Amino acid sequence: MKIINDVKFLIVGLGLIGGSYAQALTDLGYEVGAITRSQSSIDYAKEKGLIAHGTTEVSEEYVKQFDIVVFALYPRVLIKWLDQYQSYFKSGALITDVTGVKGPVVYKIQDMLRDDVEFVGAHPMAGKEVYGVQNADKSIFKNANYIVTPTEKNTKAGIETCAQLGKVLGFKTIAELSPEKHDEMIGFLSQLTHCIAVSLMTCKESEDLVNYTGDSFRDLTRIAKINEDMWCELFLLNKDELLSQMDLFIEKFKELRDGIESEDTEKIKSIMRTSTKRRMYFDKK
Amino acid sequence: MKIINDVKFLIVGLGLIGGSYAQALTDLGYEVGAITRSQSSIDYAKEKGLIAHGTTEVSEEYVKQFDIVVFALYPRVLIKWLDQYQSYFKSGALITDVTGVKGPVVYKIQDMLRDDVEFVGAHPMAGKEVYGVQNADKSIFKNANYIVTPTEKNTKAGIETCAQLGKVLGFKTIAELSPEKHDEMIGFLSQLTHCIAVSLMTCKESEDLVNYTGDSFRDLTRIAKINEDMWCELFLLNKDELLSQMDLFIEKFKELRDGIESEDTEKIKSIMRTSTKRRMYFDKK
Repeated sequence: MKIINDVKFLIVGLGLIGGSYAQALTDLGYEVGAITRSQSSIDYAKEKGLIAHGTTEVSEEYVKQFDIVVFALYPRVLIKWLDQYQSYFKSGALITDVTGVKGPVVYKIQDMLRDDVEFVGAHPMAGKEVYGVQNADKSIFKNANYIVTPTEKNTKAGIETCAQLGKVLGFKTIAELSPEKHDEMIGFLSQLTHCIAVSLMTCKESEDLVNYTGDSFRDLTRIAKINEDMWCELFLLNKDELLSQMDLFIEKFKELRDGIESEDTEKIKSIMRTSTKRRMYFDKK
Repeated sequence: MKIINDVKFLIVGLGLIGGSYAQALTDLGYEVGAITRSQSSIDYAKEKGLIAHGTTEVSEEYVKQFDIVVFALYPRVLIKWLDQYQSYFKSGALITDVTGVKGPVVYKIQDMLRDDVEFVGAHPMAGKEVYGVQNADKSIFKNANYIVTPTEKNTKAGIETCAQLGKVLGFKTIAELSPEKHDEMIGFLSQLTHCIAVSLMTCKESEDLVNYTGDSFRDLTRIAKINEDMWCELFLLNKDELLSQMDLFIEKFKELRDGIESEDTEKIKSIMRTSTKRRMYFDKK
């Protein structure tokens, strides 16, 4: 694969995702460096063989040796970082990210970035309900989707390399979407589902419910254990899209509610049949 | 265990749950018979060694040989069956069921039943998204909860035997709730979650979404593939409770929605912290 030859990777932000990227790339024989806030994360990652080297200090000397830089930071921190340190990149470097919202991030970065480096947005749709490099685990990519979100500013080569990175990391499906389509899709598939899980979980005191719980409640609320800083930021970055998805959901939920209230069995069953039919697409994969 | 000695089980309704009961009991050495509508289900269950014998005809001669009778039928069919054939039971027989709603079922049955047999309601909280005796699988009970729902009409011995049955079947937790408490709890934990999954699944055409889906949407909608006849019946039997749970959920969901609309980060994060804290109870088990 193209990107295999002689490239050095820099991971900025050694958390669960950054650490998992590092692990996958190091295991494939790449030289992987890291910049992150805490020395203990660097120490841990070096000890476990996730990275070759790393630093908590951002210096030109360190940054300019890397060909591909992956940012695994919260969106606002990412933009601040670029604002401050983008002059350090090697000319020709490829920059990518892992941010869960694309529109407000990708265009902003591409507008502010030097002309001699290229930013291609990407969203690895993988995660766990735990955090930190200590939980890094490249196997989370195995059955997951990876989405590249190119714009008109991107080159064919840059997009291709970013897609190859997804393949190299071990993702099952590599897809391409515009930042706008990505945010619409993610607003529905990911953000709305988190809103639902969180809302359900806050309905009742639940300690005494554990003994009566079947799998359905457990599965539905798995994602209700949530990183409030990250998700709050992602929700607000995609606010308009998310609100319209939430309103659509309320509308559909009320349709079912009204069907139950009026005991309209034909309506209830017809909603359920649509649901069953549509869910079957997700069984095939 | 008490119920091990010399009892013969009759399963009425050989579907997924009835078949799994039959399999578990037969494997433990009990003699298990079955009455069900289709001869092919009987044939299958006999061939696979799930039952010793079975029939599609309800006759006094057949029914009166059994000490414990488990009804794995839809609620309305169950009540019709008892209305028609309850004179066939052996005197002293223990009758139980697997119905997902208790209040409207348990009291009605106990009111109509002969004095010399006892009905103790039970709800095995186990299932799969597939149906029929061909999918019978006693392992679905292994990590599941079993709830006995006694009333004032029940004897201590009857309740005890019904609870023992749950243990014998291999359930992890055996709990006891009044029919009313059961229906409140199930309205929230099971019926509301199904309403949410179904509503979410009907929001959009989804075939093209499969490539972009993470685990959260997949987990949340697993139960959106739904048996519309059974669930519609269960929803309407528990209508008032379910509607009040649905309204509670809408209220909480709108709270989060309004927090996002007004960009009230403190409110959003506080909701998420409550959610995270409550979800942690469910990790312990």
